[in-house]
Amino acid sequence: MKHVGRSHPRLGDTPFLTGKAGFVGDIALVDQLHMRVVRSPIAFGRLRGIDAAAAFAVPGLVAVWTAEDVAALPPVGFRLAAAPTLEPYCQPVLAVDVVRYVGEPVAVVFATTATAAEDAAELVALDIDLLAPVLTLTGSSRGFEGETRPAEAATVRKAFGDLAGAMARADRVVEVSVGLDRDGAVPGETRGVVARWDGGRDVIEIWGDARLAPANRDALATMLGRPLAGVEINAVAVGGDFGMRGELYPEDVLVAYAARTLERPVRWIEDRREHLIAADQARAMAATAKAAVAADGRLLALDVEFAIDQGAYLRPTGTMVADLTAAMLPGPYRLEAFRAVGRVRMTNRTPAGAYRGAGRVEATFVRERLMDAVAAATGSPPLEVRRRSFLTPEEMPADRHMTTLGVPMTIDSGRYQSLIDQLTKRFSLELVHRRAIDRRAHGELAGVGTAVFVETSAAGKYEHVTLSVDPSGNLELVTTASELGQGLSTLLAQIVADIVGADPERIRVTHGASTRLGDGVGTFLARSSVMAGTAAQYAAELMRDKILAGAEALLEVPRERLTIHSGRIREADRHFGTALELADLARKMLPGGPLAGADGRGLVTEGWVEGEGMTFPYGVAVAVAEIDAMTGLVRVPRVFIGYDVGNAINPALVESQIATGAVQGLSSALFTSLDVSPAGEPLRVGLTDYLIPSATESPSVDVLITEDAPSLTNPLGMKGAGTAGVTGIGAAVAAAIDEALQVPGFTTHLPVRPVAIRNLLRKRSGKSERG
Amino acid sequence: MKHVGRSHPRLGDTPFLTGKAGFVGDIALVDQLHMRVVRSPIAFGRLRGIDAAAAFAVPGLVAVWTAEDVAALPPVGFRLAAAPTLEPYCQPVLAVDVVRYVGEPVAVVFATTATAAEDAAELVALDIDLLAPVLTLTGSSRGFEGETRPAEAATVRKAFGDLAGAMARADRVVEVSVGLDRDGAVPGETRGVVARWDGGRDVIEIWGDARLAPANRDALATMLGRPLAGVEINAVAVGGDFGMRGELYPEDVLVAYAARTLERPVRWIEDRREHLIAADQARAMAATAKAAVAADGRLLALDVEFAIDQGAYLRPTGTMVADLTAAMLPGPYRLEAFRAVGRVRMTNRTPAGAYRGAGRVEATFVRERLMDAVAAATGSPPLEVRRRSFLTPEEMPADRHMTTLGVPMTIDSGRYQSLIDQLTKRFSLELVHRRAIDRRAHGELAGVGTAVFVETSAAGKYEHVTLSVDPSGNLELVTTASELGQGLSTLLAQIVADIVGADPERIRVTHGASTRLGDGVGTFLARSSVMAGTAAQYAAELMRDKILAGAEALLEVPRERLTIHSGRIREADRHFGTALELADLARKMLPGGPLAGADGRGLVTEGWVEGEGMTFPYGVAVAVAEIDAMTGLVRVPRVFIGYDVGNAINPALVESQIATGAVQGLSSALFTSLDVSPAGEPLRVGLTDYLIPSATESPSVDVLITEDAPSLTNPLGMKGAGTAGVTGIGAAVAAAIDEALQVPGFTTHLPVRPVAIRNLLRKRSGKSERG
Repeated sequence: MKHVGRSHPRLGDTPFLTGKAGFVGDIALVDQLHMRVVRSPIAFGRLRGIDAAAAFAVPGLVAVWTAEDVAALPPVGFRLAAAPTLEPYCQPVLAVDVVRYVGEPVAVVFATTATAAEDAAELVALDIDLLAPVLTLTGSSRGFEGETRPAEAATVRKAFGDLAGAMARADRVVEVSVGLDRDGAVPGETRGVVARWDGGRDVIEIWGDARLAPANRDALATMLGRPLAGVEINAVAVGGDFGMRGELYPEDVLVAYAARTLERPVRWIEDRREHLIAADQARAMAATAKAAVAADGRLLALDVEFAIDQGAYLRPTGTMVADLTAAMLPGPYRLEAFRAVGRVRMTNRTPAGAYRGAGRVEATFVRERLMDAVAAATGSPPLEVRRRSFLTPEEMPADRHMTTLGVPMTIDSGRYQSLIDQLTKRFSLELVHRRAIDRRAHGELAGVGTAVFVETSAAGKYEHVTLSVDPSGNLELVTTASELGQGLSTLLAQIVADIVGADPERIRVTHGASTRLGDGVGTFLARSSVMAGTAAQYAAELMRDKILAGAEALLEVPRERLTIHSGRIREADRHFGTALELADLARKMLPGGPLAGADGRGLVTEGWVEGEGMTFPYGVAVAVAEIDAMTGLVRVPRVFIGYDVGNAINPALVESQIATGAVQGLSSALFTSLDVSPAGEPLRVGLTDYLIPSATESPSVDVLITEDAPSLTNPLGMKGAGTAGVTGIGAAVAAAIDEALQVPGFTTHLPVRPVAIRNLLRKRSGKSERG
Repeated sequence: MKHVGRSHPRLGDTPFLTGKAGFVGDIALVDQLHMRVVRSPIAFGRLRGIDAAAAFAVPGLVAVWTAEDVAALPPVGFRLAAAPTLEPYCQPVLAVDVVRYVGEPVAVVFATTATAAEDAAELVALDIDLLAPVLTLTGSSRGFEGETRPAEAATVRKAFGDLAGAMARADRVVEVSVGLDRDGAVPGETRGVVARWDGGRDVIEIWGDARLAPANRDALATMLGRPLAGVEINAVAVGGDFGMRGELYPEDVLVAYAARTLERPVRWIEDRREHLIAADQARAMAATAKAAVAADGRLLALDVEFAIDQGAYLRPTGTMVADLTAAMLPGPYRLEAFRAVGRVRMTNRTPAGAYRGAGRVEATFVRERLMDAVAAATGSPPLEVRRRSFLTPEEMPADRHMTTLGVPMTIDSGRYQSLIDQLTKRFSLELVHRRAIDRRAHGELAGVGTAVFVETSAAGKYEHVTLSVDPSGNLELVTTASELGQGLSTLLAQIVADIVGADPERIRVTHGASTRLGDGVGTFLARSSVMAGTAAQYAAELMRDKILAGAEALLEVPRERLTIHSGRIREADRHFGTALELADLARKMLPGGPLAGADGRGLVTEGWVEGEGMTFPYGVAVAVAEIDAMTGLVRVPRVFIGYDVGNAINPALVESQIATGAVQGLSSALFTSLDVSPAGEPLRVGLTDYLIPSATESPSVDVLITEDAPSLTNPLGMKGAGTAGVTGIGAAVAAAIDEALQVPGFTTHLPVRPVAIRNLLRKRSGKSERG
């Protein structure tokens, strides 16, 4: 049976369903200390002094550290190449002289119980002279009173073509000013890390999220002045990652350093308030975008200036989000000229990092809002405006004449109009739209909006796997890529299963332990299916060769006549008769034996893949919006997403990625934003303030997966799917709201605030309300 | 600076000297259970019933298991190929129906504290019908009353040449009957193991001795019905191994199975009494050996029958000791014909296993006692008798026309007489001997004895290492071979250091974690220097190539003109000017980069070596014995050992192996034996009964290391040295005692009992004493 392409049930779910999965909070080590971070309650100020005397009265307190105690540690480094100009924006492990956001670590306490640590932390008194915080992009563009570093940390510029010429030739230029508010990943499980120094081996052992185990191991080793082999990171189960978890935070460094220095295991698990003020936030940005439109309605050029609210420090992702935002602005459209200027602006907010769909959500919102504005300006249907300017399949691969993340951008494949057509047909979207028009005719506020988007994936440089068959006939695939609940293990097992001829259930996928990286170094950037999947394919092909060579020798049957199914090797044309069990073959092929294979190592193979450029999956998001005229509340009952994944190894996994992503995207569009008071104090400090949509607020999501445009960068033609659901949803919802309100260009910012809609509706009816 | 050949201080000693090294007893896991074994107090009996009711009254008791509870577990398997005929001799994890030695596990209890477990175990009542135990080889040859399995588990036969013809042509046939009593390794640290089931990963994690991590992982996985990847063994520091530790024992299986079944971590640390009655014992054997001697005094043939007291069960070493004993009997001598018949006999004693020098100690004692008898019979000096029959360098390599451990025996190289001559000259042994003669002339009892021996090493089938350079310029070598205090890490670091051009201190040797085996499978049989050392050499040579290729590209200097010293790469003829740091090169050669090397993986290499036959180091042991006429106590003030190690990578390490081995050998020769009462009850149950020599009893050991006969089986010419000290010492001491007493052939058994000497001396002087 072929497994690739089937919706094989997820492997490895049993521990989660039976409560056996070990999260970081489940780890407890004998003699462990609990760390608690003393955080700045002030958004911007000069740190005059720290008085920990009262804290020492708490029984069980072991140590209180401030910046002086960690002076040996450099600031949290960048994973991407750190330009010297970015250094002033790196975050010190503990604040030195200045505090720059509410939640910034200023001191840490270590105690024998978690409650003692919490009590002691509250007794550490901070003496801070207030400075005027800058909390908005508008404010940051005017600069800070009391800062030495410029408010703009970096500027990203990308361009191609003759912009001035295109503008001059344009029939008209359409402009929008749009933006997104701050949001965050806010997974079910908060962050946490446990570390222990093994003095016998001189190794710091770390347990926690291992999405970026190799990179974080390298960064920690460098910061702590240790050889790489002196730091080990072990994967634990995670309750949601979304790009926020797994990054290197000051807390990770503190826990590791403390375990070594205090020579006791150290454990830190953040509470929800900490998570909401200290973990990476994202999305906050503002843009002014211009489209040069030809007389025939086709796009000639895009010119976008945008700013990203980076918060108080650069995180290890550096300027990645700005870079991706700029690069992804052209999306699926043919352009003669393009220019993007992205400013990375510092504010007195929690630092921003990567969050599912980073850069692509932002770019899609800006571009698709602009396309809707073009439609309104030219009086054309929104989909017609888009159709005119899509790159066609004949133009693929399409060189974008620029790079992103240092890699040249060439869109490998895409059939954009076809995807819209298929989605329309599959879900009768014309009918869906007609129903909204009918409802409006009856006085209801209903609308449909569409956004088209291009994703990027497989930006990782290289990937390595090791595959082995053991003498019981079970296989193990060791990968640096991470299982974060997305089903990667299942997908890799399916790929290997088909090639090797084994059942996926017999294939164990081991991931995320830094000590098991085949080559000591490795990395994983989003979209593991492409990189790890291809490496797994290569390893499996080598394994199949080894198996057939061994079987050929044992059975004395030419390998061309052999088949492998469910771990049984037999002659292809013999339905009866003896089959060779993979387990028996593995025992006969043990290393050192006569059948151990050309390399003498038996049934062990490796797969290595180096990045061959990015791949560019694409999609269409269609949202239906209904607005309650009394309250201004927006409801999105249905969402339709079409997505071309090149090759859907496991369609159910792709669908679940898309459906859950859509809900997460809707959350940012309608409900969740990390607002602060005028003094910079966070207003969302718990899940009663931060309004994650429940099942009631979640839409029905219909997904169409196509495989029309296989990637040219890998043999299986795979493209990533992890962020497909989230990317287009905000732009689609905004368009649907505009249509429901019949006010083109009304929705310029997300999340949409009910008060703004109420104001509009009351203005229309002659009433108004204060925001 | 060249490091190979120098006595570089041992690396990695700091944790031991500072108390940071983690032994198994240092491991404590939250929620752990303590296991205590209920052991048979009876040497042989029928197990009628087990009543654990009283045990359940002990607070903290969690479970009591008997054979029924572990019925799913097969008996402890053989690592060597298990012949079906050996199956009845395998040990059940817990005794079924019959108990066969005092100390046999009959039940186990698990409790929340170690004391509760101990209390509860004492309350488990055993109902056993006594049977008559067989405690000696003589007894076992007559068979057991009440056993179904034959008393002889296996017979090892080795032979070459025309024995009958050689005997017929002999001028005379000399015969001896000799034997060794039981002894054991008895290291400073007793056995222990801790296991935990990680339900999230479905992996049983085990901490303990990892000398045989791959083999034990494989055996446990098979016994527990799990894939290999479902069992992980992690090395801890060990306080002495000597072949006894690291074997798979029933207790290891019980701890692993309990951790999975009870779903709590389980810890078992044995006490000294348990160790002395339950851990592998060794050496007990008896032999009748005949030498056919030509008229010119040369050996024509050897004909040996011996029996090994295997105890109650075969251990995972199977019949290895009998096989090695038989194979090593010819030693350094030219023989026309040879025959050995070795019987593996069962008794009601603790099972026997491998102990440092296994088979070689036994063979050397038999052969060298026989050579001394030939000397006495022919009236020739003992060294002259030996000289006549040595294989000469011209006869090397010398095919022995038989196999051992399945491998054909070809003695690769040896200059036996030369070693004796050098040792004699280096330590003025003629003077040493003259002094003993002088002392005897003055009525003292002093003598000198000599034994010549051939060792074997590198029996392992294959070995694998991974070598990497990290961006801080530090190296890591991952090996399956084990550091057990012998200094392997230092030796491997020296080999790599010279080739790569790095300081040994920058090379971390990681060993013994089953998850880090480069190829998922691997093994380690004694003598890691040869196998792992050669693999390390290969990996280092590949690394040097990669470094030079990278440096050539970076410096634009042909690699022929580049040198590497202390991690700095520079032009060979430039003493000044810039050098490229290895750290900088490693950063530039990171995987995925333009300089990552032909394989794209950067500075990572692997070394793989498959066994190319055994290598046969050799040595001479000379002992001085003084006897106190009043007490019959033997004192050995001086020992001289000459040993050819082929290539001494680190002479100090070889010397320390030899000197400590000599003391351990002397211990078996004079002090330690694991005696039992007539009912089979152990008489040595603590270190007040089991008389390990202290510094007072230990001799001064002078060592001469030669490198005259490099091995032909590996490029560095290395031979093993781990058992060199222990092998010849018993035979040399026996000869010295005979000379001191002036009674050739007096010492037929070790340890020498003072009462026997007193009886001899009193008989001489007309008195006698009861033994």
